Amino acid sequence: MPELRQDPLSQRWVVISTERAKRPHDFKVKPVEKHEGECAFCAGNEQQTPPEIWSYRKAGTYVNQPGWWVRTVPNKFPALGIEGSTHESVFGLNKVMNGVGAHEVIIETPEHVVEFYKHNLEQVEEIIRMWRDRHLDLRKDHRLKYVLIFKNEGPEAGASLEHAHSQLIALPMVPKSVEDEVELGFKNHVRTTGRCVICDMIKQEVTDGARIVLETERVIALCPFASRMPFEVWIIPRYHEPDFALIPEEEVSELAWILRETLCRLANVMGNPPYNMLLHSTPVNVDLGVSYHWHIEILPRLTKAAGFELGTDYFINPTPPEIAAEAIRSGACQVH
Amino acid sequence: MPELRQDPLSQRWVVISTERAKRPHDFKVKPVEKHEGECAFCAGNEQQTPPEIWSYRKAGTYVNQPGWWVRTVPNKFPALGIEGSTHESVFGLNKVMNGVGAHEVIIETPEHVVEFYKHNLEQVEEIIRMWRDRHLDLRKDHRLKYVLIFKNEGPEAGASLEHAHSQLIALPMVPKSVEDEVELGFKNHVRTTGRCVICDMIKQEVTDGARIVLETERVIALCPFASRMPFEVWIIPRYHEPDFALIPEEEVSELAWILRETLCRLANVMGNPPYNMLLHSTPVNVDLGVSYHWHIEILPRLTKAAGFELGTDYFINPTPPEIAAEAIRSGACQVH
Repeated sequence: MPELRQDPLSQRWVVISTERAKRPHDFKVKPVEKHEGECAFCAGNEQQTPPEIWSYRKAGTYVNQPGWWVRTVPNKFPALGIEGSTHESVFGLNKVMNGVGAHEVIIETPEHVVEFYKHNLEQVEEIIRMWRDRHLDLRKDHRLKYVLIFKNEGPEAGASLEHAHSQLIALPMVPKSVEDEVELGFKNHVRTTGRCVICDMIKQEVTDGARIVLETERVIALCPFASRMPFEVWIIPRYHEPDFALIPEEEVSELAWILRETLCRLANVMGNPPYNMLLHSTPVNVDLGVSYHWHIEILPRLTKAAGFELGTDYFINPTPPEIAAEAIRSGACQVH
Repeated sequence: MPELRQDPLSQRWVVISTERAKRPHDFKVKPVEKHEGECAFCAGNEQQTPPEIWSYRKAGTYVNQPGWWVRTVPNKFPALGIEGSTHESVFGLNKVMNGVGAHEVIIETPEHVVEFYKHNLEQVEEIIRMWRDRHLDLRKDHRLKYVLIFKNEGPEAGASLEHAHSQLIALPMVPKSVEDEVELGFKNHVRTTGRCVICDMIKQEVTDGARIVLETERVIALCPFASRMPFEVWIIPRYHEPDFALIPEEEVSELAWILRETLCRLANVMGNPPYNMLLHSTPVNVDLGVSYHWHIEILPRLTKAAGFELGTDYFINPTPPEIAAEAIRSGACQVH
């Protein structure tokens, strides 16, 4: 009998196959062919990207020249642009707004590294600091209400360039996914218990143990009870923190370790699967009416959304998170 | 400047690229390799599927034998099963329910046809009647609250077998997508205007004209103003009809024509793109509190959902629906 599980955050139901559960070796991950030739993101090719917005670089080096170790540039084909007002126009039923926002690319390394887990730990820390700095900078623009940091790794996850990079999109509204979490998850739980739903989720998961992937003092990685996708992992600060950009410096190194370690074990267990990573933090320049709890979602792309998923907004997940957590937990990882 | 458009039904925002709009020839659709060898859905191979649930067949022929022209069987690998209670168990934050429901496959033809648009019109009418009959039968089970009919065509759209077939999943709850349409679309619009949001949408689109694909007296095909995907088309009855399964017989032939004609033109214009089709009708065995308006959504799979889409529940659509509608409208179609 398959199981229907409800996510306490979004209230979304997920169909979990329990009988014919798919284990790691049941998925076929295509090995990705490495790209040959010039790469616009490699050091020395700075002129091939739009001029940089921000970079961490050696003293005495010039912008848009080598000498950087993490570099943020505007997306060459931005989904949203920074100019214009956020005035809504209404034509009968149809509402339109200028596509105001920001779309940036965070180049994670000057060398041609492809997989995130191959960065060394200091580099991951610096990438996290760049995410934080861009988050803090963009919220100064009061038209913007949300900053989403995300990462597409592998062509099947939508990556068009292989050189390790993350992206940032800032929006003039709170996206539906976060609004659902806030309205259906956080607010409901505060109303009935007075507590944060994610804090309670962590407590319950730690007691249960079956879905825990990794733990440090301040950060936890777990496969959520109602995982939408096989081998889905969430990384969450254990103390209540609404705003990712206010991450304490002592947490950066723990987050760096747990993020890299999780992705490394996932790569070992599944053979470098394509994945999307997304960072949900509290909206900016908005009175939310409740205290959010930031978290990172890692979504391996091993299944295809089809008519059922598009027609219901529910997912069918062939791998129970208990099996996924056990597999990732035990995946040995050897990196520098 | 890209445009943000809000869907009046789900209230979902969509980013529409207006400057670098992608036209039909900007998409590369991989030609699908035809499968060789035996097909479990072809006439003569009835023993390779689970025993049939319902079929339209010649008088004097036997079940699970040739002689049928549309045949419904249980899915061999069902996402949901028909046995068990729908009692919810709650463990702290985690809610679980038996995966009660139905998962059926409607084999659309006894011959090895792959593309839906290659069916002749009488065949399409019979497929629609089968959808209707299964809809009416399943709602007799009062545990079920929703019947979703859908179709995945092409491997990129999640089809694992190429022989033309549609699917049906019945659920013990109203799916989130429909709940959103009801709560955010239908109920809001009734509250403020006293009218059906889809009836008003049709009126406005007919007056505007730019997004209309095809029209008959009783049915209309259009590219929605806030299309999530390039070349997305909705097919809607022009008269207010909540329940697909109560479709008047005189509408079946018009729906058959417009559905096949739309898919045929789409195939001509885009070169047989993979697509998902889904049919949203009113929930069953539920007091909805508002009158729904059934419709079919055709979602070509020409773009990949990545970190942005998964992180926001919004879509980036590189083809404005005005361009899509014009292209499909003018796509010549020659079928028997």
